[in-house]
Amino acid sequence: MSAIDELASELARLPGIGRKTALRLTYHLLKQPTAQTRRLAEALVGITERVRQCEVCYNLTDAPRCHICSDPRRDGNTVCAVEEAADISAIERAAEFRGVYHVLGGRISPLNGVGPGDLTIAALVRRVQQDGITEVILATNPSMEGEATAIHLQRQLALTGVRITRIARGLPVGGDLEYADGVTIAQAISARREME
Amino acid sequence: MSAIDELASELARLPGIGRKTALRLTYHLLKQPTAQTRRLAEALVGITERVRQCEVCYNLTDAPRCHICSDPRRDGNTVCAVEEAADISAIERAAEFRGVYHVLGGRISPLNGVGPGDLTIAALVRRVQQDGITEVILATNPSMEGEATAIHLQRQLALTGVRITRIARGLPVGGDLEYADGVTIAQAISARREME
Repeated sequence: MSAIDELASELARLPGIGRKTALRLTYHLLKQPTAQTRRLAEALVGITERVRQCEVCYNLTDAPRCHICSDPRRDGNTVCAVEEAADISAIERAAEFRGVYHVLGGRISPLNGVGPGDLTIAALVRRVQQDGITEVILATNPSMEGEATAIHLQRQLALTGVRITRIARGLPVGGDLEYADGVTIAQAISARREME
Repeated sequence: MSAIDELASELARLPGIGRKTALRLTYHLLKQPTAQTRRLAEALVGITERVRQCEVCYNLTDAPRCHICSDPRRDGNTVCAVEEAADISAIERAAEFRGVYHVLGGRISPLNGVGPGDLTIAALVRRVQQDGITEVILATNPSMEGEATAIHLQRQLALTGVRITRIARGLPVGGDLEYADGVTIAQAISARREME
């Protein structure tokens, strides 16, 4: 296989990148300065060599502790439990939450052979017991499996006496009622609040 | 900058990939096996080290001659002149054309400081004079600059007495050959006309 075909087929393995986009990207990479393409290659090698899990929260990081766990301005008493490290980026972009995180490493999914023992649930319970945590926000996805994981977490954490909350479900801001699914609308209605 | 941020910002430099998509790709790359990420990195290095221009047609290739110029089943008497090597992939996908190519290396564009001397026009005229070429299909893009380039080529080639054709305007005016679908390209080639 030629170098061009090789790159195009490697790019086409990425999610959301089809054969045409892969070729377009390949020709873009062929046209740009060699140094720029090498920087991308080095960044790829960089994540394979330097990235590991935070020893506290299992976020992905270059250091023993991630930049959030090692930030003294963050509220270490409030922990937001998420399925994946990528979810942390999404929540951080919202710039609303000032506590710390716990990455579960997935969600309970019997169909995919993922049980509670495959997630970092024991480590979360240990953190709650040892680190003076006062609230755990369950921010697993609003899917069936995310809900099942949240319910399992609630039961495990109930023993510690910590406050356990779940992120609200409802219509997305900027969303359109006309295009929302029935389950979302039902939940948005049942979780309605007084207007003040 | 962390390894994750570095990769995300390198990915975000690619055309059509915004900051969010770059992050999504980064987390995908973090989750997949290390060997797979390394293969992508190696493929990137591969194009910087192995790819060069075909000595006959200026297509991008690993070898002195590209796979089309070195294929004895191709009709070497018919040359299709295109702006960029990426256009060859687009035409090959249509599987209509059985001749060979000539990559001009761009289009005449005074606003961008690209004159006829910056393209491989002299090399094309030489090929026509020396290699028994009977027809040159002008497959520059159906844009203002592509048309101007075609007209310039026609004048340069008229002296050689070769048959000069232009791909039909089956392509939407203002469109880009690289992104055209195969059927449109096939029709544009089969409906090509004499340039007068």
